Amino acid sequence: MSAYQTLERRFARLAAINDALGILHWDTETLMPPGAADGRAEQLATLKVLSHELLTDDDNADLLADAEHERELSNWQEANLHEMRRAYLHATAVPGDLVEASSRAISRCEMVWREARPAGDFAMLLPSLSEVLNLQRQIAAAKAEALGCSLYEALLDSYEPGGNTDHIDKVFGDLRAFLPGFIGEVLERQKSRPDILPLQGPFPIETQRALGVRMMQAAGFDFNKGRLDISLHPFCGGATHDVRLTTRYDEDDFTKALMGVMHETGHALYEQNRPADWLGQPVSEARGMSLHESQSLIIEMQACRSRAFLEFAAPVMRDSFGGTGPAWDAANLHRLYTKVEPGFIRVDADEVTYPAHILIRYDLEKALIAGDMILADLPGAWNEGMRDLLGLKVTTDRLGCLQDIHWPGGAWGYFPTYTLGAITAAQLFDAATRADDNVLPGLARGDFSPLVNWLRTNIHSQGSLLPADQLLTKATGRPLDASVYERHLRRRYLEEA
Amino acid sequence: MSAYQTLERRFARLAAINDALGILHWDTETLMPPGAADGRAEQLATLKVLSHELLTDDDNADLLADAEHERELSNWQEANLHEMRRAYLHATAVPGDLVEASSRAISRCEMVWREARPAGDFAMLLPSLSEVLNLQRQIAAAKAEALGCSLYEALLDSYEPGGNTDHIDKVFGDLRAFLPGFIGEVLERQKSRPDILPLQGPFPIETQRALGVRMMQAAGFDFNKGRLDISLHPFCGGATHDVRLTTRYDEDDFTKALMGVMHETGHALYEQNRPADWLGQPVSEARGMSLHESQSLIIEMQACRSRAFLEFAAPVMRDSFGGTGPAWDAANLHRLYTKVEPGFIRVDADEVTYPAHILIRYDLEKALIAGDMILADLPGAWNEGMRDLLGLKVTTDRLGCLQDIHWPGGAWGYFPTYTLGAITAAQLFDAATRADDNVLPGLARGDFSPLVNWLRTNIHSQGSLLPADQLLTKATGRPLDASVYERHLRRRYLEEA
Repeated sequence: MSAYQTLERRFARLAAINDALGILHWDTETLMPPGAADGRAEQLATLKVLSHELLTDDDNADLLADAEHERELSNWQEANLHEMRRAYLHATAVPGDLVEASSRAISRCEMVWREARPAGDFAMLLPSLSEVLNLQRQIAAAKAEALGCSLYEALLDSYEPGGNTDHIDKVFGDLRAFLPGFIGEVLERQKSRPDILPLQGPFPIETQRALGVRMMQAAGFDFNKGRLDISLHPFCGGATHDVRLTTRYDEDDFTKALMGVMHETGHALYEQNRPADWLGQPVSEARGMSLHESQSLIIEMQACRSRAFLEFAAPVMRDSFGGTGPAWDAANLHRLYTKVEPGFIRVDADEVTYPAHILIRYDLEKALIAGDMILADLPGAWNEGMRDLLGLKVTTDRLGCLQDIHWPGGAWGYFPTYTLGAITAAQLFDAATRADDNVLPGLARGDFSPLVNWLRTNIHSQGSLLPADQLLTKATGRPLDASVYERHLRRRYLEEA
Repeated sequence: MSAYQTLERRFARLAAINDALGILHWDTETLMPPGAADGRAEQLATLKVLSHELLTDDDNADLLADAEHERELSNWQEANLHEMRRAYLHATAVPGDLVEASSRAISRCEMVWREARPAGDFAMLLPSLSEVLNLQRQIAAAKAEALGCSLYEALLDSYEPGGNTDHIDKVFGDLRAFLPGFIGEVLERQKSRPDILPLQGPFPIETQRALGVRMMQAAGFDFNKGRLDISLHPFCGGATHDVRLTTRYDEDDFTKALMGVMHETGHALYEQNRPADWLGQPVSEARGMSLHESQSLIIEMQACRSRAFLEFAAPVMRDSFGGTGPAWDAANLHRLYTKVEPGFIRVDADEVTYPAHILIRYDLEKALIAGDMILADLPGAWNEGMRDLLGLKVTTDRLGCLQDIHWPGGAWGYFPTYTLGAITAAQLFDAATRADDNVLPGLARGDFSPLVNWLRTNIHSQGSLLPADQLLTKATGRPLDASVYERHLRRRYLEEA
């Protein structure tokens, strides 16, 4: 067996372990009884250590070096080998006991967070979150040395391969220049119009679920290889052939859960449409979190909140819940689904104010990882950011720095990918509509296939064959910049009916 | 670190992997979408291989030998070391690729069985079941050489450590002599009495579930560390701190699901009450499957089908479903719950005819493993057994040899433990009632604690400290024999009101 073939076998085994971890993580968030938390932490930590040990096996360095000289590799195998090397570099930079300690600290901190968040008790979270941050900084230091970058970039690289803060600072700088004035204009315009008509509930959870399932199916989600369930913090997870997304329902308002489901469906389509022939290999994986988020936002923001799609969806929603009257007209639903209102909670934020939440988090986590700030100062700094960017006064950490699972969960360097994803989504959607005249008319009749086919061809099926910037340039004809996104926002929020 | 301490760390890691496998297995049976089956098979196979590799690591032989000479071990550590050696012996007898091939074959066969069973199509199952049997025989051969026993005993030993067919043949021989005449007497007696009054449904699934949960709580099940869900074939699984049991509901008949739930609760109590200080180590584990089954049958058969308990439970059941009339009297429910009627399906069988189902399966799997019979002859031989022992003519394999998941699932040598467990249960229950006068009065007021406390002290908390026969002798004052069981059956079915 060639060195490359040996590596393929090892990475297939790694993929199976990671799939097992994906299902266990899903179970932790959806079904696990509380008293099982410590045991589950042991299971997750143990599997992560085993995965780490397989990836950092002494033989792998030689196998990677030998495989470089086996010159019979196809194009995708070359790319696969490149991704193997990347994974190996990330893994070998960090000692096994540090990986295990971090995994345990994260499991503990997530459980504390589940109590601290509803109680608004940052002091309760501080010790375990400090432990997580401390271990993240150790991991970052180890990786930064191997990758030759800053601590923060070393963490970012796990989510956004090749991502760098100069680039993000530039794009976010453009946004920061654009947003405050734009938000003001949008709020002015919305204030000048008649009130949006409210939808009268209650909206039974079973009906919401059925509507969500119907829309997921319309978008092409394969329920033979996936599920829809409930968790506190919605996510898309599971395993390669078993993509599981979650939502949370509110009987008084179906609109958020429905768009939440479509958001996660966008992630799920990326996962379900990964290149079938390469599954189990690193090259089959999604090309970074900005592109992943772009797929959720293309479905949620670009497609489902468009006036075109809501012309189709409005009567479906009305009939599902037995609604009557002009509140259920597409025009009113579109205004409801594009309403802009600065608020405390990121996951409830509208398309326009969402980037402000990210700018705050990005600055804070950069500072915390760099050591320019201590964790005890987080609530104050958070609240200052909310005041400066959105004009809001945070009175409880429940609505402030306790709201997200990311930091307790060890996902430091993840936040910027949300807004990079929004910018990418606008650019990809624009390219899709230019490439295929049927994309918008399709959405207007509830047919996602022209859009999703274009995405499958240009993004999903490409796995990690190319670096993210090359993939985007190939698909859209230009590298990432904020202009198409800003044009999209101006058109939807200042020009559309 | 001493050799023994090193072994403890390794076995703790093994326990975490096995817990992960337990949750994944549970998920496979309850929630997994069908298209995820191949991927799940990969996950299970990979984790089993990793577990096998850890257990068969080259160092372990030396560590076990060195630990034997470390003479500072406590009593439980000595027993733990003994169990480690036993696990090592089982694992090293079988090559890793055989373990992996078997795991894959089982996953495939279980999926085929899910189609073949409802279709009654043995031919559909035959190829994949042959593959499973073939690999089981290879595993048996490898183990038999290491253990110095027959092929069948080598498989049995995984479920019933030290179990031997001479012993089982003797006990089952007594039963075979006792049963047919006894069944005849019971059927005669039941025929001579007025009809049992039927319970009028439908019985909503949510109400059945709530009643099951209430009874589980009464028996001491800890929902903080466990769950109740639905699967085709009820089981008790999950992980050390996360004991998950399943049932299946029938809207026309709540009585089976309720007793099924109490049966699995008996298993669950054994798992939830394992010795807390030794968890993660082999000595903490339940002492074989006959004792495990004895715990389910003590709760279901000895306790919950007793007249004493039904005096308490009858009004609870009646009030749950809003029932009225004499059908809901304890006397009628007791007759219903002790009704004897030869039938095709093992899991639906009553206490009296159940052992006949086991005698058939025991003979057949012994012959198949020994090579004295081929799999193509299984349906015919099965049907012959049903005719001879229960006087029934099997007309579809759906009601015959396709009914159980055990053989497709690779659990060969497991069946005898059901009836050994029934015999053990009678002996333990008899001892508990003699040791504590409150056991029966407790059940009559829905209080399981005197019974369960005795079981916790004498069985659950003992883990694998002693061999099964010594544990039973210590708890009951005598080794296993069928006499108490037969006395229990005679009393309940020929003497009680």
